[in-house]
Amino acid sequence: MGAKVAIVMGSQSDWETMTCAAEVLDELGVESDVRIVSAHRTPDRMYDFAKGAADAGFEVIIAGAGGAAHLPGMIAALTHIPVLGVPVQSKALSGQDSLLSIVQMPAGVPVGTLAIGKAGATNAGLLAAAILANHDAAVSQRLQDWRAARSAAVTERPVG
Amino acid sequence: MGAKVAIVMGSQSDWETMTCAAEVLDELGVESDVRIVSAHRTPDRMYDFAKGAADAGFEVIIAGAGGAAHLPGMIAALTHIPVLGVPVQSKALSGQDSLLSIVQMPAGVPVGTLAIGKAGATNAGLLAAAILANHDAAVSQRLQDWRAARSAAVTERPVG
Amino acid sequence: MGAKVAIVMGSQSDWETMTCAAEVLDELGVESDVRIVSAHRTPDRMYDFAKGAADAGFEVIIAGAGGAAHLPGMIAALTHIPVLGVPVQSKALSGQDSLLSIVQMPAGVPVGTLAIGKAGATNAGLLAAAILANHDAAVSQRLQDWRAARSAAVTERPVG
Amino acid sequence: MGAKVAIVMGSQSDWETMTCAAEVLDELGVESDVRIVSAHRTPDRMYDFAKGAADAGFEVIIAGAGGAAHLPGMIAALTHIPVLGVPVQSKALSGQDSLLSIVQMPAGVPVGTLAIGKAGATNAGLLAAAILANHDAAVSQRLQDWRAARSAAVTERPVG
Amino acid sequence: MGAKVAIVMGSQSDWETMTCAAEVLDELGVESDVRIVSAHRTPDRMYDFAKGAADAGFEVIIAGAGGAAHLPGMIAALTHIPVLGVPVQSKALSGQDSLLSIVQMPAGVPVGTLAIGKAGATNAGLLAAAILANHDAAVSQRLQDWRAARSAAVTERPVG
Amino acid sequence: MGAKVAIVMGSQSDWETMTCAAEVLDELGVESDVRIVSAHRTPDRMYDFAKGAADAGFEVIIAGAGGAAHLPGMIAALTHIPVLGVPVQSKALSGQDSLLSIVQMPAGVPVGTLAIGKAGATNAGLLAAAILANHDAAVSQRLQDWRAARSAAVTERPVG
Amino acid sequence: MGAKVAIVMGSQSDWETMTCAAEVLDELGVESDVRIVSAHRTPDRMYDFAKGAADAGFEVIIAGAGGAAHLPGMIAALTHIPVLGVPVQSKALSGQDSLLSIVQMPAGVPVGTLAIGKAGATNAGLLAAAILANHDAAVSQRLQDWRAARSAAVTERPVG
Amino acid sequence: MGAKVAIVMGSQSDWETMTCAAEVLDELGVESDVRIVSAHRTPDRMYDFAKGAADAGFEVIIAGAGGAAHLPGMIAALTHIPVLGVPVQSKALSGQDSLLSIVQMPAGVPVGTLAIGKAGATNAGLLAAAILANHDAAVSQRLQDWRAARSAAVTERPVG
Repeated sequence: MGAKVAIVMGSQSDWETMTCAAEVLDELGVESDVRIVSAHRTPDRMYDFAKGAADAGFEVIIAGAGGAAHLPGMIAALTHIPVLGVPVQSKALSGQDSLLSIVQMPAGVPVGTLAIGKAGATNAGLLAAAILANHDAAVSQRLQDWRAARSAAVTERPVG
Repeated sequence: MGAKVAIVMGSQSDWETMTCAAEVLDELGVESDVRIVSAHRTPDRMYDFAKGAADAGFEVIIAGAGGAAHLPGMIAALTHIPVLGVPVQSKALSGQDSLLSIVQMPAGVPVGTLAIGKAGATNAGLLAAAILANHDAAVSQRLQDWRAARSAAVTERPVG
Repeated sequence: MGAKVAIVMGSQSDWETMTCAAEVLDELGVESDVRIVSAHRTPDRMYDFAKGAADAGFEVIIAGAGGAAHLPGMIAALTHIPVLGVPVQSKALSGQDSLLSIVQMPAGVPVGTLAIGKAGATNAGLLAAAILANHDAAVSQRLQDWRAARSAAVTERPVG
Repeated sequence: MGAKVAIVMGSQSDWETMTCAAEVLDELGVESDVRIVSAHRTPDRMYDFAKGAADAGFEVIIAGAGGAAHLPGMIAALTHIPVLGVPVQSKALSGQDSLLSIVQMPAGVPVGTLAIGKAGATNAGLLAAAILANHDAAVSQRLQDWRAARSAAVTERPVG
Repeated sequence: MGAKVAIVMGSQSDWETMTCAAEVLDELGVESDVRIVSAHRTPDRMYDFAKGAADAGFEVIIAGAGGAAHLPGMIAALTHIPVLGVPVQSKALSGQDSLLSIVQMPAGVPVGTLAIGKAGATNAGLLAAAILANHDAAVSQRLQDWRAARSAAVTERPVG
Repeated sequence: MGAKVAIVMGSQSDWETMTCAAEVLDELGVESDVRIVSAHRTPDRMYDFAKGAADAGFEVIIAGAGGAAHLPGMIAALTHIPVLGVPVQSKALSGQDSLLSIVQMPAGVPVGTLAIGKAGATNAGLLAAAILANHDAAVSQRLQDWRAARSAAVTERPVG
Repeated sequence: MGAKVAIVMGSQSDWETMTCAAEVLDELGVESDVRIVSAHRTPDRMYDFAKGAADAGFEVIIAGAGGAAHLPGMIAALTHIPVLGVPVQSKALSGQDSLLSIVQMPAGVPVGTLAIGKAGATNAGLLAAAILANHDAAVSQRLQDWRAARSAAVTERPVG
Repeated sequence: MGAKVAIVMGSQSDWETMTCAAEVLDELGVESDVRIVSAHRTPDRMYDFAKGAADAGFEVIIAGAGGAAHLPGMIAALTHIPVLGVPVQSKALSGQDSLLSIVQMPAGVPVGTLAIGKAGATNAGLLAAAILANHDAAVSQRLQDWRAARSAAVTERPVG
């Protein structure tokens, strides 16, 4: 059976950020399908991907983009599957444009938006896993273990 | 069986916004459990709620708050269930503070953030339904119908 | 022969703003074709419209939208015809989100962006007319007259 | 016959950005005339250039400037030819000042504004070509080929 | 002999703000010459005014404008007389665009910028008076009296 | 007897900033107890710390965090002891998110917020000392001496 | 004996906001001394007040101001007593200017800054009380009771 | 006779910026008196300087500061001489805090504010010279020559 989580991004340059989503999903034993799908340069690919996402068996789509970031919202317009958006940090405006372009969706077409940059990509992976975990006890257990391990790793005092 | 979606908010004044989440869930035939849980005024209630959310059978928590909006992120720190955040529009800064306080979570504790204000509350309801719909064909069908009806309602030409 | 300028907007509520584009084009004797095309609620209509725009004889497309405003950029992704974008003033963020969502397009897919709100809509009409005027002496003359009349209407001293 | 596209900028330091406009026009086989015209240091040169632009045969003017960027708007005030503005990224405010100074023109004097920085300069070149392409089949074909080539170059998967 | 202070503004609608400059100058017994000079709609009038300002005997020019506010900076480019700028509060962005368009001038062409709105207009009048006061003992005395009276009017305790 | 000032921070990476608070307290002869307490990763530790802070003898708590910085506000929700907040400079938004997340607390739960980054951490230490100094003449004297020495160190003229 | 808390503000118009500080102190049985002290219009009064504050027996000073809000920081420069700052909501920029002018103090001169507007004023009163409560068991008890009562008043469910 | 222009700054670190003001005045043959005067660390020195400025023969005061930049406004509160403010670029907020702290002065106490950073410092020097030039023909001539030389130095075409 195929991956339940798709990770898409607008360009190769977004991969440095979005790899964090793939990595944390991998740590949690959740398979992901990673693709470049550009809303602006490959709109047909985007249409085909988004319209076929439900039939392809995806249960969550993670979409990352920067600047006038239209990819997450457009995918959300084309499928009823949950879409999570990652604002990639942009050069001039540090991701403020990316964030607003993704999060300020009109009523009717939601994108669950995470933080700007790598923290957001990691968290998109974690939130996707949490969504799957509602119906996958093994993922749920690994997610809870992952969280517990991170909590346990916090030292009592700073060093240095 | 109880509701699978919890809607929590920091104060009575947030209800004007958050009612949009409850309403759209109701339209989709999804039961929700609505509560006031203030991170700042009732931290113990928040802890008890969040820590007990999984056992209570919730599969998604929608949390709305304004200003230094800590409720969504703190609930996400206390449960592994998916948390969606709604930035309530604040008086002085129009929700810019609410948005940043909710969306800029550090790696490890995700909050899927929606738009500022009522559009965000409606979309939190829709995204919660989409999450449930992965394993509930009836909700999935109603969600797709709801979306199709909204698309069909868009007229070809503006009037007036 | 059909209109050379298309005016599209994301929803009926944008018409209060976008009517300014239609009005100024009408003053200049330039026909426009006005439609509601929502990137998020009617993505298929948007695809069909944008992909058919060149064959339909349009030489300029004016697109207005607010919030996470994806309409101008997505149309620009789907046609090689010049696209002008109007950021509609949004409720919470006064159009700052609309502006950044429209103007911050990545290299390769341009949207000529005008000011937030009605001034921007009027100017989109004027810029469309200026583009047509390069090859339409009558439009060029009316545009120059319109500008001259406005200049002449500026009084020497404020009153009141 | 002379160039139909003029590229002007406020200072030598803007050339690093504006060269992107000249380069993409060159790739599309569109001649451009590149000049330094400072609104603040050479206002007379700006007046002469802008007032003579129509008679010089220009059909589009691309103007780039940073900070309190008055060049695009002032040229637009002095000619009825279409003016495209490029906000050059400024030191302290990363081009936020440049963007607002260019895009927020009052009703009556439009500037079609592109993104901050090099992406905006490239897109100004592309939009100028799109405007010419309405009446130049060769440019239109090269523009469509350029776009198709860019779309084709998007790989299916990220690497690295 | 004519007025030493000119007050210019981009449009009639700016007068509600700029009247505060004229009023405070009047209170201080300083004559002002008030005009509408639009950078965008009447660029020739602006050129003539600014280039003739020194010969006309002006010692300070106060210029107010809103949005992409080019008037103060362009006048400063065209005369060596001190120019003070007043950012008029704009509709969508509350004068943030006006402020940045006026204050962020490049090295070489200064505009002494005051606060957004009426406070800024009043202060432009006061600063103009202070400049004249360096060589006009009567104005200096009235300015000092005006300031002393305002200080004396501050009550010890709030009421109500 | 134990320290009267606690310094807590969300992660090891905040220590580079928060060490400034510890250092200035040390210069003033005020003992501090430094800990890592993460609102998001160790919410239970935070609860225990904050609820026990009064009994532990703390009279001031300094809390530093970045991004969606919930630590200062949550501690303030859990104890009646004065809480001072330090917004740590974040990567994408330079601490603007940290600042708003800390300072914009709702009525009822105050956090005395200092500047973004190291200056804020130093000032949190100084403000904590000033609070103690109300009832500790030795600290008061050292604080006044520290301030006087800094004033005396300001040279009359810049060098270089 | 005199009040231990001084509340100062820049003008009568700030009283609508600052009254919230006085009111909550009154509820907590803490006397306050309320004055208008303008940094800009009555700098001598400000110097005298701030330099005499310690000898007058004040243990906390609450200072509110709007726009270029210099009062809290200047008082903090003139006394070693703890100073709390309240950014009054300004007309054009909604208190963003007030907030930055108060909170971004350089290392050496702290101002504990509260939220913009009335919430901030209430919280300044509460934080002042918390500071006094360290050495005043009665105030401490009333403060804890006040907080407990507010927590108890939070209903379980929203109404309406 | 002494200098007519004073240049003051809040700290040694501001000198890198403020030296641009001194340099351009030097180029124009205008003597300046340069001092460190900190509003926060040396408030008494600031009072003495500002109150004595008129008697010392100064006709313009240039004041530069960063962050919560109170120096220009406080000097303007203490003297009726024209004050020009230079917002020094700050670390976290790139001078946005400096700019708002300086420019947003309340009605009654003007500060003529220049751009953030070195451009602003240069322009403060030029504006000071322009103020003196009203009554000093030699300075006026040198200022006009300086401006003419800069205009003449603008090449027709960019190089490289």
